Amino acid sequence: MFEDLRFPVIAAPMAGGPTTPELVAAVTAAGGFGFLAGGYLSADALADRIAKTAELTGEPFGVNLFVPGGAAETDLGGHIGRWRAEAERHGVEPGEPRWDDDAYTAKLEVVLERKVPVVSFTFGVPSPEDVGRLHANGSEVAVTVTNPAEAERAIAVGADALVVQGFEAGAHRGLFADEPEAEGGGPQYGVLSLLRLVSARTDLPLVATGGLVHGADIAAVLAAGAVAAQLGTAFLRADEAGTQPAHRQALANGGRPTAFTRAFSGRPARSLVNRAVADFSATAPSAYPEVNNLTKPIRAAAGKAGDAEIMSLYAGQTYELAGSGPAASIVERLQAEAREAATRLSRLR
Amino acid sequence: MFEDLRFPVIAAPMAGGPTTPELVAAVTAAGGFGFLAGGYLSADALADRIAKTAELTGEPFGVNLFVPGGAAETDLGGHIGRWRAEAERHGVEPGEPRWDDDAYTAKLEVVLERKVPVVSFTFGVPSPEDVGRLHANGSEVAVTVTNPAEAERAIAVGADALVVQGFEAGAHRGLFADEPEAEGGGPQYGVLSLLRLVSARTDLPLVATGGLVHGADIAAVLAAGAVAAQLGTAFLRADEAGTQPAHRQALANGGRPTAFTRAFSGRPARSLVNRAVADFSATAPSAYPEVNNLTKPIRAAAGKAGDAEIMSLYAGQTYELAGSGPAASIVERLQAEAREAATRLSRLR
Repeated sequence: MFEDLRFPVIAAPMAGGPTTPELVAAVTAAGGFGFLAGGYLSADALADRIAKTAELTGEPFGVNLFVPGGAAETDLGGHIGRWRAEAERHGVEPGEPRWDDDAYTAKLEVVLERKVPVVSFTFGVPSPEDVGRLHANGSEVAVTVTNPAEAERAIAVGADALVVQGFEAGAHRGLFADEPEAEGGGPQYGVLSLLRLVSARTDLPLVATGGLVHGADIAAVLAAGAVAAQLGTAFLRADEAGTQPAHRQALANGGRPTAFTRAFSGRPARSLVNRAVADFSATAPSAYPEVNNLTKPIRAAAGKAGDAEIMSLYAGQTYELAGSGPAASIVERLQAEAREAATRLSRLR
Repeated sequence: MFEDLRFPVIAAPMAGGPTTPELVAAVTAAGGFGFLAGGYLSADALADRIAKTAELTGEPFGVNLFVPGGAAETDLGGHIGRWRAEAERHGVEPGEPRWDDDAYTAKLEVVLERKVPVVSFTFGVPSPEDVGRLHANGSEVAVTVTNPAEAERAIAVGADALVVQGFEAGAHRGLFADEPEAEGGGPQYGVLSLLRLVSARTDLPLVATGGLVHGADIAAVLAAGAVAAQLGTAFLRADEAGTQPAHRQALANGGRPTAFTRAFSGRPARSLVNRAVADFSATAPSAYPEVNNLTKPIRAAAGKAGDAEIMSLYAGQTYELAGSGPAASIVERLQAEAREAATRLSRLR
């Protein structure tokens, strides 16, 4: 699938708003490939977005789903207290910190029914049975991996492609399990090193992601063996993205470092450092999706109010170099940069 | 300097033994460039190695120096106790945990006197005056940087090139200052992201380093804008390297993760995880070179005894993919792999 793209750039599935059918369609029209983000949506909402995207483009696109994990066994009391104060400030009630499976089974039925060409999975692997159903249905299966051990598990269930996510990536790390004691939730690999380690283990097509924001980065990971580059942050400020205005503004302002935090969702995610990250990260529990459900209405209210200090400002390590404008013009620029970068390798011949 | 190499690969300066005049000469003869490691040596020993290397090759080579920092203000008591037990087990006395300046001034005079073509600096920047003396002497100055702020400081003192070190790199991070509370001592950037962020700030030639172990990695960083790739771990098991047998064996065995530790030197360095890393890292103080001086005789004794659990097993994140054999054959393989990788970019044209 990805080997045949006119330009091997993939718009990453960005759950929670940034990814829209319009963004997927625009990147596809420009010669790339787009993924809808199934995470956090109801099955009906996902079906609607798939239908909308299909209306906007006749080309294939993908859907990403979050694989559910187990319920947290952590005391959330202290973290709830911190967020309650922010909820009061914004005049809303905190969400109920409950576990859920993100309607995984129902959404899997939706992508089967709609015969989505590529279904990617994050936070774990689908069961071999579900992989079999997708294959029988004509869908390809991609799995996000953050370390070589996860790659081996994805290969074992029959994945057709791996999305190799370096620690540079914005938003959630795809970690199958969050180790509460580990900074970042588990082993941290740079995208280039991880690509190398995974390509030594498999001949499956590898999609590289994490900190890629310039056409030269795309050329780099293709040279390193990837079939395509997946970019999220590079499209966060695209006209077609659903990114909130205060989030866009914080990205455009620059100047903030990024860091991993469990503060917003209970799972390590790379965010610009704001007050919530600075003050809550050290004590934030490993408890996903409980914490995500807790903070959801507060983050939504903060987003509406333009309170950049308390909303999640997810972004990759190189966010300051990402541009804005129509997605087509972003892809066009990436393509020109990638071509120029490729010419630098003439010295190797 | 690096733009003119027949093959843009640089053998990293690996202090403490691995880098030898023979390794530098062999990589140079194969079309690359080598750096002698000035760190830990007396000025006389460095002068000897420079003379020996000049005997072995008529081509230019570089010397790396550690910029001294301030004395530690930390209580080393607990750490000394842990290492004393290991010293007793190996029948040696611990070293005196004293501060020193690594004979920096005297070694700077040596590289000036010998008119070393390229002098690189790690752990900080040389003074503008020293940069001026080196320039007046015909030497180029390179500075190792691990984040954009360090890059700006290196540019400000007049560096001619920057060695952009990703967090994937083996051994010491080049951090100008070790933040005791930070995992890894400070901000962590993947080599590709750091290259992107630094190249947005300067047109100076950038050398990429960190986790590069395959010719495809070299092609990748060249595409991303580096003028050359610096590889350390890829040469650790070269015939010409001075790497200790037990270190070589641990690298060849594979199976150990890598992690940052201050256990051996008091500064964050990436090492294979052995007992010393697992047991001492959490409490190891930020105190370089005090801790390095403390552990030196114990590590030496452990190395002689082949005790891989207590010696420093410094290595980059992709160490399992590094090979052995004559350095010339390693360079030849890298070159073939890099050429093959470059052909993958034909799809961008």
